[in-house]
Amino acid sequence: MSRVFDRVAILGLGLLGGSVALAARRAGVAKHLVGSGRRTAPLAQALADGVVDEVAGVCEAVSGAELVILATPIGAMESILAEASPFLAEHTRVTDVGSVKGTLADRLPSLLPAGVHYVGAHPMAGSHERGVEHAAADLFEGSCCVISPLRSTPSAASEDVAGFWRALGADVVVRDPGAHDEEVAWVSHAPHILAFAFARAFKEAPSSARELVGSGFRDFTRIARSDPGMWAEIMNSNRKAVASPLRAFGDSLAEVARAIEAGDVETLETFLTQAQDMLVGESRQASLQAAPGRCGDVRSGDDNPEIQADPESANPRRSKKENE
Amino acid sequence: MSRVFDRVAILGLGLLGGSVALAARRAGVAKHLVGSGRRTAPLAQALADGVVDEVAGVCEAVSGAELVILATPIGAMESILAEASPFLAEHTRVTDVGSVKGTLADRLPSLLPAGVHYVGAHPMAGSHERGVEHAAADLFEGSCCVISPLRSTPSAASEDVAGFWRALGADVVVRDPGAHDEEVAWVSHAPHILAFAFARAFKEAPSSARELVGSGFRDFTRIARSDPGMWAEIMNSNRKAVASPLRAFGDSLAEVARAIEAGDVETLETFLTQAQDMLVGESRQASLQAAPGRCGDVRSGDDNPEIQADPESANPRRSKKENE
Repeated sequence: MSRVFDRVAILGLGLLGGSVALAARRAGVAKHLVGSGRRTAPLAQALADGVVDEVAGVCEAVSGAELVILATPIGAMESILAEASPFLAEHTRVTDVGSVKGTLADRLPSLLPAGVHYVGAHPMAGSHERGVEHAAADLFEGSCCVISPLRSTPSAASEDVAGFWRALGADVVVRDPGAHDEEVAWVSHAPHILAFAFARAFKEAPSSARELVGSGFRDFTRIARSDPGMWAEIMNSNRKAVASPLRAFGDSLAEVARAIEAGDVETLETFLTQAQDMLVGESRQASLQAAPGRCGDVRSGDDNPEIQADPESANPRRSKKENE
Repeated sequence: MSRVFDRVAILGLGLLGGSVALAARRAGVAKHLVGSGRRTAPLAQALADGVVDEVAGVCEAVSGAELVILATPIGAMESILAEASPFLAEHTRVTDVGSVKGTLADRLPSLLPAGVHYVGAHPMAGSHERGVEHAAADLFEGSCCVISPLRSTPSAASEDVAGFWRALGADVVVRDPGAHDEEVAWVSHAPHILAFAFARAFKEAPSSARELVGSGFRDFTRIARSDPGMWAEIMNSNRKAVASPLRAFGDSLAEVARAIEAGDVETLETFLTQAQDMLVGESRQASLQAAPGRCGDVRSGDDNPEIQADPESANPRRSKKENE
């Protein structure tokens, strides 16, 4: 059973913060939910809609809260926590929703009074929509949530925070902040950089090329439809860790380009086969054979977006456009 | 009304060739279907299943055929057409299914006897499956098919071939071979190269990173699950045209990397916003406003895979994992 928190403060009531509120209420792990944010109209609407029980300024919101969730963009978390800090009671748990964990782990803990512990979290769920009006109680269901306790974090604090995210429907995995940042640089940040860079390059394409766009192009560039402001901040915050996948990609691209230039079909086929082999570990088949409980797993449930988004499981015709 | 061909020969009875046969029969545009191929067992099965009415060697298959479809890998088309050529009757139409049109337009027409015309085609449909056993009568429905007549091609020949592909359910657009190759280099070949290169680079990733793979990574790398042999040949055949998108991508990546390195979030956000603007032209909203009849359009019909594959139209929750 997850711990039930009497008062939960959510600082930043946007899509993620609002979804945390709805999911926490549905799971019965928050008795009283307080939201705080910069824009008053959405806050008032969220209150009217029953997303939260109360809206308040930062200091009032966190007063007496047993759990505080930072749900602003990552760049604003340090200053908002500094503002909240004097009002935090002993034993309060602090977590967040940021996509980068290293810089937050470096800066946030020192802002906290004694007895208050920060356990960073990265719920790997979101939407191309923004704002609390698009919040959903099931946003975290079947998704992966990384938590990043520090070595000094008492296990009771880690367990409280992990239990909270689990109650919201997420599969929780634990990574230290540096390992988290390195791994998401590979599976998320570098792909976003490449997709955005390719989309930008498209300004050089003949305009009639757009008429031939198919599902391959759309899937490849889909992640470049994500919010530019949020992603500029994420890429910047994780700039050290993205260097490694980008360098490896550059080497790999140079190698395939050389084979293409040389007209060396045999080497090219070997290269492409090796590339494909690297994807086997995250295919549905492989995941089904993997140990249970890892976030990459395929779980049951028709409403699992990971499954719906997987071309090999959701719809065998998804790949219809492969002869592009 | 499309022309009905008395005898249609399909050279290479794999997934595409088999689907052409099934779709042509369903559309009633082929009275007698003859299949030819290297492997005898699948041919016998296709005959038993009624995919074709007859199986035969190349020369026998094309004898008396009014329409010949080259459906082998592109590297084999020249030699198979040379073999078939002496047996082609006057006014036979020859088309193909190759993903690259320039080299075929350079080489195939000179192999043909007088009065026989080649009108290259690129049906932008396929599957990650291979072989005639996975052929489907609706494979081309709602898909885009580029046809590439030469300047010297009589319009009657172009119309026969365009009408055939339209009867199979495809939306036909016309491009000269060079323009086709340049455009698909942008919308398909370069994205495939980048996805394969990134998948290959993944060998440098920490193995635990796989546990954090989500739908963003999967969509971005999906096209790298395509057949390596087929794609090595496509990339090689279109190696001149892919240089331009790869160079533009390289410049674009260098620019975003510089902004990340410099910690210049403002420039980075501008860059990402400009990148995203480049995708607007192929978004659903833009397509709906565009002139009708272009392949990039969104058409009605729930079974249209283009629509199903479009995250913004098919399923608003598709992008649930955006906070990766």
